[in-house]
Amino acid sequence: MPDAATYSTDALENIVRDIFLRAGLSAQQAGPVAAVIVAGERDNCKSHGIYRIEGCLRTLAAGKVQPRAVPVLAEDDGTAVVRVDARGGFSPAAFALGAPVLAERAHKLGVAALVINDCTHFSALWPEIEALTARGLAAMAMCPSYSSVAPSGGTAPLLGTNPFAFGWPRGEGHPYVFDFATSVVARGEIELHRRAGKPLPEGWAIDSDGRPTTDPDAALAGAMLPFGGHKGSAISTMIELLAGCMIGDMTSDAALDYLGTTAILPHHGELILAFSPARFAAGRPGDPFARAEAFLGAISGQGARLPSQRRFAARARVAAEGIHLNADEVALLERLRDPGGSV
Amino acid sequence: MPDAATYSTDALENIVRDIFLRAGLSAQQAGPVAAVIVAGERDNCKSHGIYRIEGCLRTLAAGKVQPRAVPVLAEDDGTAVVRVDARGGFSPAAFALGAPVLAERAHKLGVAALVINDCTHFSALWPEIEALTARGLAAMAMCPSYSSVAPSGGTAPLLGTNPFAFGWPRGEGHPYVFDFATSVVARGEIELHRRAGKPLPEGWAIDSDGRPTTDPDAALAGAMLPFGGHKGSAISTMIELLAGCMIGDMTSDAALDYLGTTAILPHHGELILAFSPARFAAGRPGDPFARAEAFLGAISGQGARLPSQRRFAARARVAAEGIHLNADEVALLERLRDPGGSV
Repeated sequence: MPDAATYSTDALENIVRDIFLRAGLSAQQAGPVAAVIVAGERDNCKSHGIYRIEGCLRTLAAGKVQPRAVPVLAEDDGTAVVRVDARGGFSPAAFALGAPVLAERAHKLGVAALVINDCTHFSALWPEIEALTARGLAAMAMCPSYSSVAPSGGTAPLLGTNPFAFGWPRGEGHPYVFDFATSVVARGEIELHRRAGKPLPEGWAIDSDGRPTTDPDAALAGAMLPFGGHKGSAISTMIELLAGCMIGDMTSDAALDYLGTTAILPHHGELILAFSPARFAAGRPGDPFARAEAFLGAISGQGARLPSQRRFAARARVAAEGIHLNADEVALLERLRDPGGSV
Repeated sequence: MPDAATYSTDALENIVRDIFLRAGLSAQQAGPVAAVIVAGERDNCKSHGIYRIEGCLRTLAAGKVQPRAVPVLAEDDGTAVVRVDARGGFSPAAFALGAPVLAERAHKLGVAALVINDCTHFSALWPEIEALTARGLAAMAMCPSYSSVAPSGGTAPLLGTNPFAFGWPRGEGHPYVFDFATSVVARGEIELHRRAGKPLPEGWAIDSDGRPTTDPDAALAGAMLPFGGHKGSAISTMIELLAGCMIGDMTSDAALDYLGTTAILPHHGELILAFSPARFAAGRPGDPFARAEAFLGAISGQGARLPSQRRFAARARVAAEGIHLNADEVALLERLRDPGGSV
């Protein structure tokens, strides 16, 4: 058993990239995948950190992702829509290709959209949001996942946990960023309650007959519920329509039908909108960024925490101290680096 | 005291328009204002129906809205952003001017935005959403209001009740439309509990010390809470940033400062996004509208109600039977038609 260890972000990214290269991913796929996984680990988002590597490899073993896919950027058709066909590869490589074009289009037109089609999606959305706020843009991102959430008033899984994310640039400081599932909680929370033998809080889930339940087993056999009742359900439905139907890609029920399991990563598309505040505010009084600082300052001034503050604090710690992995995590990495080895 | 009465939509619209014309509104202002008020009454949205007339007149009497404002459409600057300066008038006249240009721009570019600046806002957002779905577009609309909601984790009013609305076109049928406040409830609900002497449900409000309260008086002196906890709070914050700071218009706290009261209508801007599903889905397999029908059918098939179904049912009743107003409502209209009269 290896000891706990500390890595620089670059060093850990090299290790993770190497695992994916050995698993058969092209450099174009492996680099962006490793970058988002290490960003999650760096920000202490454990659910999107190195824990994700095995899910990616399982999806690869199931033949449901193309490890050497070359994403294709569609020719500029004179619209505000930038399209990247991921060709069955992972979403981060497709986003890396499309993001600079989206940014250029949004700066030019004020608002523009990036559509990613035909990708395997496993990443949090905030790394994409932050890539755009770093270019002076506000951004909104959304995608389906696979059916595990009942619509408000419904009885069975249909919606995905459909994440919704938004960001606003704050100059040299960390951006304002939120990124959340439109279910009350992530499925993993229900699994944790099951393992701990604890009942669920009310309002999280329904059983397979569509009745409210606090029993984790009944919930896992039934459906999760959307956050915020009918309002959250409506937002999740909007995500299915815009980032599924509208972009000509799978809704969450189609994604589940295609995979037949929630044990591997979902395959669908994604929609990202980028806005240029400088363009929108042109000719209006005041600087939009300065006015936003005053507004966000009024939130913090009440003692309310802005979203993502915990992530940014973790990031600052890592910049000073490196990324700490415990012995189990180091063992996981060693096993994944050398699947046939003796560790 | 007059009797209860029944009106055709056109007849009621003429009465309401006439009230506004006599109050000094120009025809350009009065027509769209009357249309959205009667649309609310027709759909049995009483809170946005003829009840709103007096608030509009109070705002006029306070000198906070320009009754003869001529909204100005900015010259096409080659971007995806359509701008209408409402010149201090009501939002419906500005929307009426901008909507056809927004629709044309969205059909051309795939996605486009309409910014309305410097308007007095009192309308629900769904009439605007439905004007765009009728043109084959999906649409999203949002605006600030005035500070009455504390951010999640905060202690005092800062956010508005900030409505968020979305629509998807469904061919000849009624569109999929939602339109909701990002507070748990509208302020009027708290007022109704106060009058009835009933405690509030938990989670609706905090008192002026920032502590949770179920006392309506304490809530009215304190702040409402956002729907869905930190997630709803994040969406409301996004609305302040995009439809306030970004478009160079007032945030909810600036709007309250400007008016000094919540007894008249708020003055700020609005952001509307329009999407062409036909453009977005071009070249992808399947028809986006047919796929959306299958998806929305799966929601209804579970027995879950789609948003706005109650409104559409009321609209169908009115088409058959006309708009019924009770004796008090008829008296209100007669008094407003002839403020110096004997009724």
